[in-house]
Amino acid sequence: MAEEEVKVFRTWSSPFALRVIWALKLKGVEFDTVYEDLSNKSPLLLKYNPVHKKVPVLLHNGKPICESLVILEYVDETWPQVPLLPQDPHERAMARFWAKFGDDKVLPSIVYGILFKQGKEQEEEIPKAMENLQFLEEELKGKKFFGGEEIGLVDLALGWLAYELGIFEEVMGLKLIDQQKFPQLAQWIQEFSNVPIIQENWPPRDKLIAKFAACREAALAKAGL
Amino acid sequence: MAEEEVKVFRTWSSPFALRVIWALKLKGVEFDTVYEDLSNKSPLLLKYNPVHKKVPVLLHNGKPICESLVILEYVDETWPQVPLLPQDPHERAMARFWAKFGDDKVLPSIVYGILFKQGKEQEEEIPKAMENLQFLEEELKGKKFFGGEEIGLVDLALGWLAYELGIFEEVMGLKLIDQQKFPQLAQWIQEFSNVPIIQENWPPRDKLIAKFAACREAALAKAGL
Repeated sequence: MAEEEVKVFRTWSSPFALRVIWALKLKGVEFDTVYEDLSNKSPLLLKYNPVHKKVPVLLHNGKPICESLVILEYVDETWPQVPLLPQDPHERAMARFWAKFGDDKVLPSIVYGILFKQGKEQEEEIPKAMENLQFLEEELKGKKFFGGEEIGLVDLALGWLAYELGIFEEVMGLKLIDQQKFPQLAQWIQEFSNVPIIQENWPPRDKLIAKFAACREAALAKAGL
Repeated sequence: MAEEEVKVFRTWSSPFALRVIWALKLKGVEFDTVYEDLSNKSPLLLKYNPVHKKVPVLLHNGKPICESLVILEYVDETWPQVPLLPQDPHERAMARFWAKFGDDKVLPSIVYGILFKQGKEQEEEIPKAMENLQFLEEELKGKKFFGGEEIGLVDLALGWLAYELGIFEEVMGLKLIDQQKFPQLAQWIQEFSNVPIIQENWPPRDKLIAKFAACREAALAKAGL
């Protein structure tokens, strides 16, 4: 194992890359990190991810794997210690379902529906995002993490919510999740953020605030809002 | 096994539901079928898929599974005969990658980019769709199926392409895949369509043509094209 090559191509801010970093650290897998500048992508990134040209890429003994949820499954199959997916096929399916729901519905409804909008256009989108969060709230009932007593694949996939949602809220001056509306989610944000490996790897908050404020401004300008 | 309840909620036309039908038939799993009318969804569909309210849903011994790619993984784990995913973790990751690419990129670039557009708007989108198809073309090099010598998860996920693309082409009067531009894909369409279980389960071609012609007309009218 000492001879293994494990390398993660990431950026300082990508929440998708962070999933992979967290997974490898939770499993105690040693790896090297390559920081990419997406405005000037390295030849290696373009070689390893010619389809999407994005981070994260996991390079394992010369073989690249792309797409963060695909990488998480690969990591879980390759290093089975500290499992991310449950053993039971139905529970595995439910984990895959919620991870996909997070990426396909929750994330776009919050980022494109709310963060990148304002005024009437934003108000119209809020109910959809709230409905999505309500599904997560219900999924968490009776559980500490989406994975149960321990962090699992869904927790890593939704991890951005635990940190970036607060940043979005600050950038917009608008509160989306609170103790009253979403007690389970609010509790989960606390529990998840308290896990040392999660906490230690968040990107700097000030830098993220500046980044998302700029992204929001650009998106609003583009949409003429 | 005789006591097992296996039920698929589908529509007559959904290519996503068809993946599940094919997978179960390839594996020789017996199942019941519930045909849904999406303009008047059944209480059971809404109960089993409260998040997306869509087909397919697989019901197995009382437990629902939603999202066709998630269902395919569940089917593969539950009935391991005639495997859909390879054994090797890297090959499994690549299969998941291409299945996701099909849904996230190939399908929207063809349906929303080309079928639901015309004129200048359509012309602008064609290069993106062609680039996506070129990635599939390269992935097929030296292989009969995406899964190698046998049909696998990626073949089922991209199965719509083998049948509906020809229907889209007929509806639009525009040829996208031919022997010269995409020899591997053209060959794959033949090979895949020749598999009895695939062929026997296609929806009626005339009905699909009428359906997509109507969808296209509605989409063009909505976009003012």
